[in-house]
Amino acid sequence: MPDDETASTPRVDFQVHPSRYRHWRLTTDGPVATLTLDVDERGGLVPGYELKLNSYDLGVDIELYDAVQRLRFSHPEVRAVIVTSGKEKVFCAGANIRMLAASPHPWKVNFCKFTNETRNGIEDATAGSGQAYLAAVNGTASGGGYELALACEHIMLIDDRSSAVALPELPLLGVLPGTGGLTRVTDKRHVRRDLADYFATKSEGIGGRKAVQWRLVDEAVPRAAWEQTVAERAAELAGRSTRPASTAVRGIELTPLPKIRTGAEISYSSVTASLDRERGVVEITVSGPEAAAPDGIAAVHRQGAGFWTLAMTRELDDLILDLRTNELELGTWVFRTRGHADLVLGYDRLLLDHADDWLANEIISYLKRTLKRLDVTSRSLLALIGPGSCFAGSLLELALAADRSYQLAGVFEEADPGAEPAAVTVGPMNLGPLPMGNGLTRLQTRYLGDDKGLAAVEKVTGEPLQAEDAERLGLVTFAPDDIDWDEEVRIAIEERASFSPDALSGMEANYRFAGPETMETKIFGRLTAWQNWIFNRPNAAGPDGALRRFGTGQRARFDRKRV
Amino acid sequence: MPDDETASTPRVDFQVHPSRYRHWRLTTDGPVATLTLDVDERGGLVPGYELKLNSYDLGVDIELYDAVQRLRFSHPEVRAVIVTSGKEKVFCAGANIRMLAASPHPWKVNFCKFTNETRNGIEDATAGSGQAYLAAVNGTASGGGYELALACEHIMLIDDRSSAVALPELPLLGVLPGTGGLTRVTDKRHVRRDLADYFATKSEGIGGRKAVQWRLVDEAVPRAAWEQTVAERAAELAGRSTRPASTAVRGIELTPLPKIRTGAEISYSSVTASLDRERGVVEITVSGPEAAAPDGIAAVHRQGAGFWTLAMTRELDDLILDLRTNELELGTWVFRTRGHADLVLGYDRLLLDHADDWLANEIISYLKRTLKRLDVTSRSLLALIGPGSCFAGSLLELALAADRSYQLAGVFEEADPGAEPAAVTVGPMNLGPLPMGNGLTRLQTRYLGDDKGLAAVEKVTGEPLQAEDAERLGLVTFAPDDIDWDEEVRIAIEERASFSPDALSGMEANYRFAGPETMETKIFGRLTAWQNWIFNRPNAAGPDGALRRFGTGQRARFDRKRV
Repeated sequence: MPDDETASTPRVDFQVHPSRYRHWRLTTDGPVATLTLDVDERGGLVPGYELKLNSYDLGVDIELYDAVQRLRFSHPEVRAVIVTSGKEKVFCAGANIRMLAASPHPWKVNFCKFTNETRNGIEDATAGSGQAYLAAVNGTASGGGYELALACEHIMLIDDRSSAVALPELPLLGVLPGTGGLTRVTDKRHVRRDLADYFATKSEGIGGRKAVQWRLVDEAVPRAAWEQTVAERAAELAGRSTRPASTAVRGIELTPLPKIRTGAEISYSSVTASLDRERGVVEITVSGPEAAAPDGIAAVHRQGAGFWTLAMTRELDDLILDLRTNELELGTWVFRTRGHADLVLGYDRLLLDHADDWLANEIISYLKRTLKRLDVTSRSLLALIGPGSCFAGSLLELALAADRSYQLAGVFEEADPGAEPAAVTVGPMNLGPLPMGNGLTRLQTRYLGDDKGLAAVEKVTGEPLQAEDAERLGLVTFAPDDIDWDEEVRIAIEERASFSPDALSGMEANYRFAGPETMETKIFGRLTAWQNWIFNRPNAAGPDGALRRFGTGQRARFDRKRV
Repeated sequence: MPDDETASTPRVDFQVHPSRYRHWRLTTDGPVATLTLDVDERGGLVPGYELKLNSYDLGVDIELYDAVQRLRFSHPEVRAVIVTSGKEKVFCAGANIRMLAASPHPWKVNFCKFTNETRNGIEDATAGSGQAYLAAVNGTASGGGYELALACEHIMLIDDRSSAVALPELPLLGVLPGTGGLTRVTDKRHVRRDLADYFATKSEGIGGRKAVQWRLVDEAVPRAAWEQTVAERAAELAGRSTRPASTAVRGIELTPLPKIRTGAEISYSSVTASLDRERGVVEITVSGPEAAAPDGIAAVHRQGAGFWTLAMTRELDDLILDLRTNELELGTWVFRTRGHADLVLGYDRLLLDHADDWLANEIISYLKRTLKRLDVTSRSLLALIGPGSCFAGSLLELALAADRSYQLAGVFEEADPGAEPAAVTVGPMNLGPLPMGNGLTRLQTRYLGDDKGLAAVEKVTGEPLQAEDAERLGLVTFAPDDIDWDEEVRIAIEERASFSPDALSGMEANYRFAGPETMETKIFGRLTAWQNWIFNRPNAAGPDGALRRFGTGQRARFDRKRV
């Protein structure tokens, strides 16, 4: 059932730099940074729409993601971040509607996923890095514009009798707010659910005193007091920050990635991916460090973006985004690692021993976010654990994130009989610092309801486990020997490619988040799934649907059956 | 965008009786009941498919629901229920695939919702009524057949080298298990997520020792020991039950409902509904008791199905099912009540004062389940609170379940100036006995994150609150006076009818379950939304999709893009 839906979408590059931003301005003034959204109407990523009223597309959000990342790594002195608009009367109108209406289904879904991750990243910076975000909503914020504000710790709305916050998706477009709006309104801001219902049906939104009373914003500030109040709030947030207070602390530069991309391969320094379009598979290899971790945290600061854990994480992050956006038909990602487990564990130890250092904290936190990105990726993930691999500590998380893992029992007797058999090693990184979106570690999720199993695994921390032991402890799914290996792995991959891609997305999204739910998993699980459904229905995306008819002067025509 | 998708689906009647079952046999033997599934192949609800291999359609499940209900009310002596098959070699093949393939989208979704509610009801009987369900899987249980077993407390699988449990939906049909399979496998039975992944891709399933090791079943029992072991387990479960031990206890009969249905009205003794097809609205009125509650619990037993709370609950339950299944285009349900708050509170008090009586417990629990059914209903729910109403205690839950509520401030000065102004009254029923699927009461969900607001409301328990007070306390959404009432209510209803029905379903499903999640909300929220999406995609439901091609000998053709 091939279609040409994606013919019009370009290959997207996620690497940008503040010097090349077209839509955002990033300035810093001591402990306070300001991110000003001033969208270039003609700067859309794809031809065919203008980004009016500070509306955004993926290109605008890629810059925002870059800015949030650089603030964390390059600006340790920044303790509060003001998000505001550079336009008159409008803060942000949300995702561009013509872009959405013209986009194929996978593009819409992938776009929403990335924007959600970026907003979660804003909350993560506030909670984990002492960089609190302040939404200075100096004009109307609607749809994704209000959702951007919702991701901030504190929301100020200008009180000028016209500016408001709004979620007009349902009344105007027949879809849901796509970046967590419904969930954050009730679960984060505790807007009462009936008021939230009214709010989400009122396209013009709510401003002033009522917006405060209903908890939609934290304060409404008259224009005359605006600038001063924004500065005061930013100073207050900065004052509560856990960032290092010394102004002598220097950030690190996130240097350009050493990326080479062809149609068949994507490679960086520690990560390579070979794209097998025939089988619909990406074979990803992550290389461990080549030498022992440096001695002491100062060396981590000196190495900066070259420090293995950070370099590997940045490359993995970019690879995930590239493949997710640009390679929709490569449905199975196969992970391998290559290197020495003890070196990986050494790097982990160095970071954990200095977890109170701001940079070590940032690196661990970034790895956590990147692994979370993997968890919500709609691709089947397999881990192949063979001789010469280094699935230990932080890299073991790749196997724990996978839907299935295969560890070779013994060695390949014909190819390399003298090899050291493959081992996996649990390390301290697996026991807390890298939680999933559900709040549990990947090990806790794996052993949900099996406390004995979890305790047994924790007990062998630091011990290399060969296939038989790893399988017995439940750390890997299967442990075939070299006689069965090729056949078992081949069948697993071919089978995956034969299944309905949609059913796989649904199954994986359910299984990967066993156990408790958080605001984050609700956004990716419940809200995203409903939105995907609605995006697929003729009432939204059909020729007479609300999304397609918006702005044409014609009303949408709905099939009125409730489902 | 009208279509004739539902032209082929008949009006469904949910009222059945064991004497008329075509697919189940219900027998009791002292404390142990046996429910035997023996589907009449030619007994499908809709022409066009045969119910082979003990597969089911909505008609089969309506009988199961009826049996589960009657076991609770008519058989207080039953302490364990064996669910088994009357066929050779097959326990149950799940939902009939030809039925699914031929069904319009809303039918599939509604069918899954009802079957989910029935399975939740089985767990509710086990947990709350001391009627533990035992799945005696005496042949292969696949898809919905295994999911039926998953709803039971204990799963026994016959160990005969051919019988297995399976979730073949993904590999065979390109959809997900639709009745909680994915969620219960990991979250209830604690099957490891990678093993669960493998299991759900293996259409032939897993039996014997491995099924036990992977926790898919609790025990595998050889054929020779089967009957005796089933009897032993049932006796063990019965022995642990909290049901009254005395065999002298008598059940009550669930007598036929006094239902009159025309195209424009559905009425019972305490519930009436007028169907306004022009506006797409159902106006539902629930009448309170006409006299004071009887004196003492013995009278409740004597009155049986005539006892107001039980009669009202049964009628409301039937109405919800009827409207949900048969009236898809009536998208807004408007609730009113009529009667005396003190009488409603009196009935509540009688039940709560005797909550340890098995029948009082059953009545409260049934009301709880019926209100939960309302919560997951994909219709907009409004409550209109005017003079002469009795939104108090158990009936206040209707307003708390609504997406919005309107309470008249004062009276209708022209029509009835001497009326008593409308009041709402919080009662003990609102403070615990009727939790939602998320484990919170509707009040707790309403005041999520607002402990002060909740405490203020709890403090006025028992006090009739007129509109101004109720609005101030946050118990109702709006409190217009008689000058604004008609206009405000009219706009709310008309506006609702103008919105995309799909977007409303999505919004309501998100807002109604603010806060924590449970297995139940995950099944209705996360899993259902994914399934709805998949049901809508050409990869499943299109002419070349897996669901349509199953059994034709032709393979499905998939759009391989991952979304």
